[in-house]
Amino acid sequence: MNQTVTQNTPKNPTRVTTPSDREIRIERIFDAPRSRVWKAFTDPELVAQWWGRGNKVVIEKFEPVRGGHWRFVEHSPDGTNGFEGRYREVTPEERVVQTFEWDGMPGHVIVETVELEDLGDGRTRVVNVSLFHTNAERDGMLHSGMEGGLNDSYAALDRLLARMV
Amino acid sequence: MNQTVTQNTPKNPTRVTTPSDREIRIERIFDAPRSRVWKAFTDPELVAQWWGRGNKVVIEKFEPVRGGHWRFVEHSPDGTNGFEGRYREVTPEERVVQTFEWDGMPGHVIVETVELEDLGDGRTRVVNVSLFHTNAERDGMLHSGMEGGLNDSYAALDRLLARMV
Repeated sequence: MNQTVTQNTPKNPTRVTTPSDREIRIERIFDAPRSRVWKAFTDPELVAQWWGRGNKVVIEKFEPVRGGHWRFVEHSPDGTNGFEGRYREVTPEERVVQTFEWDGMPGHVIVETVELEDLGDGRTRVVNVSLFHTNAERDGMLHSGMEGGLNDSYAALDRLLARMV
Repeated sequence: MNQTVTQNTPKNPTRVTTPSDREIRIERIFDAPRSRVWKAFTDPELVAQWWGRGNKVVIEKFEPVRGGHWRFVEHSPDGTNGFEGRYREVTPEERVVQTFEWDGMPGHVIVETVELEDLGDGRTRVVNVSLFHTNAERDGMLHSGMEGGLNDSYAALDRLLARMV
């Protein structure tokens, strides 16, 4: 069950695995201290700069506290896509657990657990585990082109973190 | 895995089973034609009359179409409880698939599939299957006093359906 989808390499620093038949685990190291990575994840003006991979992102709602909601609308050349969810847990600089739902598949809800680990050398490991309701939904995400989009987002985040020095 | 939690009897017409370790299935026959049961499920003024089991229910949002949201706030002597979710599918008189989330456990999302079956004799069978993300969440619901609350809601719905003739 725990299969490697993508092994990280110097050129592609993202590692994608499937710890169970309803999960996707994504691991990525960022060349920035944890406090800076946390800021890029939780300051809406910064989130808007990397989340959309160059596309305009309108942050309609962003309440990163337990019970709060979030909603982002991405405007791409192909059209408009809304995403939303709710925070289950927010532990500053360490951990966020939130739901994730795309307007195109309403009611199909993913639980995302994002953990930030201070590597002690000025770098930060971010581990993102997504739990789906069913194996079919998990496989749908794996085959959706998620990984390309994710790498584009993370590359934009790399650039933002470098600018934040 | 498919265990009977409550067998229906003449005094308790609700049958509760667990088809899998992440599901609860609830079956109940109502003494009213399907169109009337559907109306009681989808007209917000009617929903407010039975959903809260006698407690005041404020329907803050109620958009029973694919992608629409719902949010109900129940005011009981013990306090205020909000519930919300989103519609995945709405097939009039036949089937609703929606998510369900209680403010007290934000980000813990249940997928509810509600099906109405016309029994042909003026009665309607309602089958509600709830799918949880984990077995622990399912068991938490089973031990939450859900069944008492459910029977109170359904008894209130029986009375409403009788008044709607």
